[in-house]
Amino acid sequence: MSQYKAPLRDIRFALYDVLDAETRFRQLGFEEAGRETVDAVLDESARFCETVLAPLNAIGDEHGVTHDKASGDVTTPPGFRQAYAQFAEGGWGALGAPVEYGGLGLPHVLGMPLEEMIDAANLAWGNFPLLSHGAANALRLHGEAWQREVFLTKLVSGEWTGTMCLTEPHCGTDLGLLRTRAEPRDDGTHAISGTKIFITAGEHDLTDNIVHLVLARLPDAPAGSKGISLFLVPKFKVARDGSMGERNTLRCGAVEHKMGIHASATCVMNFDGAQGYLIGQPHKGLMAMFTMMNTARLGVGLQGLGLADRAYQNALRYARERLQSRALSGARFPDKPADPIIVQPDVRRMLLTCKALTEGGRVLAYHAGLQIDIADHGATEDERKAADDLVGFLTPIVKACLTEWGVECTYHALQCFGGHGYIREHGMEQLARDARITTLYEGTTGIQALDLMGRKIMQLQGAGLKVFLGMVQAFCAEHAGDAALEEFIAPLREKAGEWQALTLAVGKRAMANPEEVGAAAHDYLFYSGYVALAYWWARSVAAAEASSQSQAFKDAKRETARFYFARILPRTLAHKAAVDAGPGSLLALDEDAFDA
Amino acid sequence: MSQYKAPLRDIRFALYDVLDAETRFRQLGFEEAGRETVDAVLDESARFCETVLAPLNAIGDEHGVTHDKASGDVTTPPGFRQAYAQFAEGGWGALGAPVEYGGLGLPHVLGMPLEEMIDAANLAWGNFPLLSHGAANALRLHGEAWQREVFLTKLVSGEWTGTMCLTEPHCGTDLGLLRTRAEPRDDGTHAISGTKIFITAGEHDLTDNIVHLVLARLPDAPAGSKGISLFLVPKFKVARDGSMGERNTLRCGAVEHKMGIHASATCVMNFDGAQGYLIGQPHKGLMAMFTMMNTARLGVGLQGLGLADRAYQNALRYARERLQSRALSGARFPDKPADPIIVQPDVRRMLLTCKALTEGGRVLAYHAGLQIDIADHGATEDERKAADDLVGFLTPIVKACLTEWGVECTYHALQCFGGHGYIREHGMEQLARDARITTLYEGTTGIQALDLMGRKIMQLQGAGLKVFLGMVQAFCAEHAGDAALEEFIAPLREKAGEWQALTLAVGKRAMANPEEVGAAAHDYLFYSGYVALAYWWARSVAAAEASSQSQAFKDAKRETARFYFARILPRTLAHKAAVDAGPGSLLALDEDAFDA
Repeated sequence: MSQYKAPLRDIRFALYDVLDAETRFRQLGFEEAGRETVDAVLDESARFCETVLAPLNAIGDEHGVTHDKASGDVTTPPGFRQAYAQFAEGGWGALGAPVEYGGLGLPHVLGMPLEEMIDAANLAWGNFPLLSHGAANALRLHGEAWQREVFLTKLVSGEWTGTMCLTEPHCGTDLGLLRTRAEPRDDGTHAISGTKIFITAGEHDLTDNIVHLVLARLPDAPAGSKGISLFLVPKFKVARDGSMGERNTLRCGAVEHKMGIHASATCVMNFDGAQGYLIGQPHKGLMAMFTMMNTARLGVGLQGLGLADRAYQNALRYARERLQSRALSGARFPDKPADPIIVQPDVRRMLLTCKALTEGGRVLAYHAGLQIDIADHGATEDERKAADDLVGFLTPIVKACLTEWGVECTYHALQCFGGHGYIREHGMEQLARDARITTLYEGTTGIQALDLMGRKIMQLQGAGLKVFLGMVQAFCAEHAGDAALEEFIAPLREKAGEWQALTLAVGKRAMANPEEVGAAAHDYLFYSGYVALAYWWARSVAAAEASSQSQAFKDAKRETARFYFARILPRTLAHKAAVDAGPGSLLALDEDAFDA
Repeated sequence: MSQYKAPLRDIRFALYDVLDAETRFRQLGFEEAGRETVDAVLDESARFCETVLAPLNAIGDEHGVTHDKASGDVTTPPGFRQAYAQFAEGGWGALGAPVEYGGLGLPHVLGMPLEEMIDAANLAWGNFPLLSHGAANALRLHGEAWQREVFLTKLVSGEWTGTMCLTEPHCGTDLGLLRTRAEPRDDGTHAISGTKIFITAGEHDLTDNIVHLVLARLPDAPAGSKGISLFLVPKFKVARDGSMGERNTLRCGAVEHKMGIHASATCVMNFDGAQGYLIGQPHKGLMAMFTMMNTARLGVGLQGLGLADRAYQNALRYARERLQSRALSGARFPDKPADPIIVQPDVRRMLLTCKALTEGGRVLAYHAGLQIDIADHGATEDERKAADDLVGFLTPIVKACLTEWGVECTYHALQCFGGHGYIREHGMEQLARDARITTLYEGTTGIQALDLMGRKIMQLQGAGLKVFLGMVQAFCAEHAGDAALEEFIAPLREKAGEWQALTLAVGKRAMANPEEVGAAAHDYLFYSGYVALAYWWARSVAAAEASSQSQAFKDAKRETARFYFARILPRTLAHKAAVDAGPGSLLALDEDAFDA
């Protein structure tokens, strides 16, 4: 079984030393988020994840969820209910929620280490409370007062969970095709009918009620994505005074059998004239849903991060324990029958790749999350605007890169185990199977790339990139004469210039030919992710040097940064070449000619 | 469920048009391997794989093998026995085996398309007959006359299957550590005792007997890898006259629960004083085993190829059928509710990556296999030596690249399905899980890289590389003025020069510091693989142009080659940078400092 130890030291390093969160929280007016409080929250989160959730991870994979065809009920694996009860009781779902709805009112970014640790400990379990945040946000921004009173408070307290019901059998990415209908009733409610698929936590036995947020079409709706409205559809009806009513006419028709996250209930949901409430304006449902989706996308990025970290920890342990062959330059441990495989450069290549992508990715993700707090609470309009641009720009990068890196790191970590990695009992293959969903749900990697290139670069004219490049340039200027950082500053400055030029070049071509957007999108996103990570690695070295961390910690950051610049950053060369190549070779073949 | 159609047109293109196998077979004296015979063999192989094996693939995954703890018996999934009986009856295992032992005496390379098709149709099933070849080869080269008579003929006929028993719980890569003992008995046999793990097809219900080839230590054996001998240990004892005796004292103690290839019996084998026969010289067992392993490594490369091809076929079908969103430059099929996703450049990027790696990889693998025939039957000593050098050089490249590309292609293909790819019923996730074993068994990717860099480049002074580079240079010279190929020849010539220079540079550094070998190995191997594939793509375009294939086929080859040169070959930039970076950043961190 794979083990998990919450990486508290590196989480604190990212928050305090690199991102200077203590000062930031003070500036943003989070009086309650002092260092002591935050440290206590982190310690308790870690304890909960390590001792309650992590031991259930293999059990969940083995048992999966079970669906009763007759009743539609879904049963979660042994231990999941108790763990959820502890979660709700501990108020973990209320961390970043507003105080007026029972939340703790802590900064949004503090939810990120919690999510990362939950995901690392037990991704499938983490999917049950995950979407409650998004549902709560949608209600907070678009719900009526009584709906917030009745539903939002229960989502914050964790008494109920939420879902996002978007996908239908014939439509996933292209929601404009969706067919679920909403018929107005005399009492002001709507009758919702249709089939939704891939509904995470659509049905389960963890809470007494489930709050579905459902996209559907009103009778007079225009065709396409401009005719979609958002409805709240509870599993059990609830009166305006909060009293529970009868079962609503919706049920889980099936659960999917999946490659991984077996303990996550991925439901087919059948709505049969179920009672629903319109949330926000008619036909404006997609906008409201996007509010939820952006937070969810950062959250899925954290899933990739958490799995990568857990995989790395286990591969590291195995590489230190497994004795096999000798170091190439002679036995390192002649008293043992063989050297541990961690002496092998190729094993180190895999381990350091995991370490560099995980620790760097952590800063990348937390920084994006911090922008949400600044966008909400920044002192000036300019500051809030810059943070909002930044989070919009960084969200597809965090989602796509951290999930693809999560897949890559679980791959390397499994590979470090050799054939043993392929066997279930070591738990490495579960991490690899679980990680595989993260590049698919909440918008595939390809959709993230289109969001970045088509919307954040083209439509919004790279506003977020400009803010980010400004940060990079300021950092390079600040450390211009710093001998300790010189080895990183020079290549970083060069890459930042190249990034800008590449963006301008592809943007110009895309103005003339929209296919350029799709042809460049994937490689442009990863190019951007690797340059952004170079910046965070350079800053991590600077932050470590300026910190009171141990010399060993400082050395490890510096050597990992060197590894990153020498062996990972050059991936940008291949991505740049692909962007430069344009759409020609992608579009030349006719649809029929792929198997000519 | 995923579907499979044997890619006969491209298999024939690779054999006849690119590799000119018809002429080659004639030159090598394979009188029986005329075009008509070969075509008939390919057609029949395809039919068997498509209609018998492919439909059992999902069934095998669902059922897996079952192990009876009391008896040690292993039961294969429904249909596997019948399919194996058809395989043996059809003489498919006898294709390349010598006529004197009941084989058909066809060229070795013709077994490759058969293996590729079997693997694509049903990898787990394919693992049962797979190792019989290796066992037969070891017996042919090192066995006594009566052993060849009794055991080899049964392996060739498919009546019995073979295994390779190498790995033990504490030793995989480093066989020098192995502990299984062989005690001489008065009757000239040996008593074999020990535990072997990860034994593919170690126990099953497909045949009446199983021939285990087991590595063990004689009592007077020197320590380490120079004290290992090879033994033949049958499941049922067999007398010299071929009559079956009693059950030997060995049994399957458990089968592993794995990420994929559920229907492949991966056994823990307990030998308890089992009767065995020494094969070859005492203490020289590792050499004999390597004979088997090299063939097996090319075979595992074909597994990656087959899975990549099947995944590609299904992703292509889905991309043509799935209607979602519109082309970026406007609706391509305005009469449909949405365009098929194959109009999206990013979907095409994934499909073309699969197509380029699969079709190019096919030629790479078959060419390596053809060298085995030339090494055995070439007219001159020089020709045989060059072929032998070449196959030694190409084997780690074929094994590592085709398996890693297999993982990559099954990844892309699953990704084309979006969330549906993660659901079992589509069968894409099974292909991804099954592919994952190929980079681990028969030597991990890291071990292949060390074999290439440490042995084939350093120890053998790049003899095989020189032969390959000679082929590239001759091709470039031949087409120097060819306008139709100019776009490929120039970059290929440049890459070939760079390859040579990179090899010399890293070789020189490695003479001074052996850690350079390990530090460069992985990236040097992939660099080599991508340049080699560029050569085969350029040659494929040339071969297509010179052939009687349809214009659509020629165009598809050319456009895929363009895609390869524009968007895949640039990966060499990142690999070269990593090789150039040397061991510094890999070795700087102390073992303890990885989580400092």
